[in-house]
Amino acid sequence: MIYLDNAATAKPDESCVKAAEKYLFTEYYNPSALYAEGYNLQLELKEARRNIISLFADENNYSLIFTASGTEADNQAIFGGGKRGNVVTTSGEHSAIYSAVNELKQRGIEVRFADLNADGSVNVNHLLGLIDEKTSLVSVIHVNNESGAINDINSIADKVKSKNKLTLFHSDGVQAFGKIAFRLNKSVDMYSVSAHKIGGIKGCGALVKRKNLVIKPYIFGGGQEQGLRSGTENVFGIKCFEYAALTRYKKISSCFEKVKTLNSAMRLGLDKEFFRIISGENASPYILSVTARGVRGETIMHEVDDKGLIIATGSACSSNEKKRYSRIMLACGLDENDADGVLRISFSPENTLQEVEEAVKILNETVKNRKLKMA
Amino acid sequence: MIYLDNAATAKPDESCVKAAEKYLFTEYYNPSALYAEGYNLQLELKEARRNIISLFADENNYSLIFTASGTEADNQAIFGGGKRGNVVTTSGEHSAIYSAVNELKQRGIEVRFADLNADGSVNVNHLLGLIDEKTSLVSVIHVNNESGAINDINSIADKVKSKNKLTLFHSDGVQAFGKIAFRLNKSVDMYSVSAHKIGGIKGCGALVKRKNLVIKPYIFGGGQEQGLRSGTENVFGIKCFEYAALTRYKKISSCFEKVKTLNSAMRLGLDKEFFRIISGENASPYILSVTARGVRGETIMHEVDDKGLIIATGSACSSNEKKRYSRIMLACGLDENDADGVLRISFSPENTLQEVEEAVKILNETVKNRKLKMA
Repeated sequence: MIYLDNAATAKPDESCVKAAEKYLFTEYYNPSALYAEGYNLQLELKEARRNIISLFADENNYSLIFTASGTEADNQAIFGGGKRGNVVTTSGEHSAIYSAVNELKQRGIEVRFADLNADGSVNVNHLLGLIDEKTSLVSVIHVNNESGAINDINSIADKVKSKNKLTLFHSDGVQAFGKIAFRLNKSVDMYSVSAHKIGGIKGCGALVKRKNLVIKPYIFGGGQEQGLRSGTENVFGIKCFEYAALTRYKKISSCFEKVKTLNSAMRLGLDKEFFRIISGENASPYILSVTARGVRGETIMHEVDDKGLIIATGSACSSNEKKRYSRIMLACGLDENDADGVLRISFSPENTLQEVEEAVKILNETVKNRKLKMA
Repeated sequence: MIYLDNAATAKPDESCVKAAEKYLFTEYYNPSALYAEGYNLQLELKEARRNIISLFADENNYSLIFTASGTEADNQAIFGGGKRGNVVTTSGEHSAIYSAVNELKQRGIEVRFADLNADGSVNVNHLLGLIDEKTSLVSVIHVNNESGAINDINSIADKVKSKNKLTLFHSDGVQAFGKIAFRLNKSVDMYSVSAHKIGGIKGCGALVKRKNLVIKPYIFGGGQEQGLRSGTENVFGIKCFEYAALTRYKKISSCFEKVKTLNSAMRLGLDKEFFRIISGENASPYILSVTARGVRGETIMHEVDDKGLIIATGSACSSNEKKRYSRIMLACGLDENDADGVLRISFSPENTLQEVEEAVKILNETVKNRKLKMA
């Protein structure tokens, strides 16, 4: 199988998982235990937090809360930060933010959505216009999980702070972390990441937050993660995450270049008669959205799956929304015909050019045949 | 090292973990993806849910939500069920319940705590007396995580329902599941379990609930777990959990007998001059609490750790509470001197009689020497 749905989840990095195996069978202690074996694990978790933060932020000014997923990190940021007044976000958020702010609405918080540009990035002026003295939180996705559009979150966060310095700024960085080289500036108060998109395993994410930012816990109990997220620490998952992040960041530029080559080959190879590229030229090369206008994306996805190619029609996490058209693609301005034909192709540095060439062939052939049948 | 802190966490079952490894490196897809490879995993998760439920409840009347921990399952039950009026629980709850109901209090819900008997079980009459027409939820721990006391939750749930049939009944079953043979009766609405106490890995738990009970999600997003718990499913953790649970339940009686033998040997072996047994005769044999009155438990724990024996002073999850005395032990009626000397010894079916005999020797010797030094 050719796997081009790496934005949904990626194959774990086998060497990282193997290196972390000792935390399953040898160092299996509870890190909250007070004896040396437990305490040593607590120190290792502390080091893991610092190691991960240092990859993209100042480890002296940020702390890190391990969670079970990017989704949980997003929930903690939204419910922890969106306590009063109104919350401003974008129409291009992952469902973890979208559903959480809709829940905030139920709880009496006003939620305002900023429009998207055609490529899926946020219309920054519209966003800034929505912020007022009552805005407690702004949340802007870093890399859009359907179009790959990159929002310049540092610059947006600065602008948000100059409109209202008390407003907290959060960004969902799940599709950016380990893929796009960047460093958080101090206007970004909270940032969510996930392990399983970059070689870690499912079941582990983190919320990075400014050290002196006080937020409430979201999961209450034994007081793990400095009281901010209770539950026995998932040491194995966390170590896999740490190792995968360190491994990935060491080669983040060469991975980026490699994936850019794959993305370009796909863009060039897809038959212009049948496909229209949705992702902008400046999008993250890891995600390429295209539409096969007039053909159902879902049909194509199943047909190419039978031929050995795995791609998506959109975010896996939106498949449960059971709506025919992606709300993000509609927010990008696509009409229903275009939105119906959307396919998301997402790359990993492990993919090869041969795989992409084969994928191009399968996609062109499949859509051509389908169109012929429909004609 | 002799590991007798299995109630904090247990060594994962290596054969179960190995069997689940294919979900890391081969079947690494996202179960929410719509193509066959994703959908097949969704079916496997469905089967895992049924398999786990069927071990201790009617799989036609209960459903299961995978969470990241027993703590998260407890939080979902408390915040999902404790919506109005008052919530009744016990003074013997794990901190996952204790902290969650304290948060409920902050949100304006009245919380009532039932007293404990000397062995750590709940005083059922006191509990029932706290229930009135405004009680939305009752939560009673199944096996107390410090004393091992077993609450007869089926019978308590029946009595709760006959006092107020609209009251929901939840039980934290983390220390019971896979250890004590039982089946939920229909008065139990929700039940929390955890994987890593019975051979699964950390980072996976579940909330089992009556199928037709409507509760709100606690983590919002892509709508995984039938909309009740969002975040990419931790397939590897879940499969480890399923395999460990199935393996453990196949031999639950022989494990129980084995652990009972270990527990008895420990009870018999500990020098009566130095130790008083706190756990009742009918407690779960998996947990044995004793006190070395007049000696600090923490000191003993560190000393025996140096000698190759790992035990706890109480719940690992309460170590973050940073209180000198266990609130549960005080609720059992221990005075501060007794509470100060509490040690929790907890067994696994993997422990051997030789290990227990060696542990007895180390414990007797250590406390004796300490007393001599103090004299």
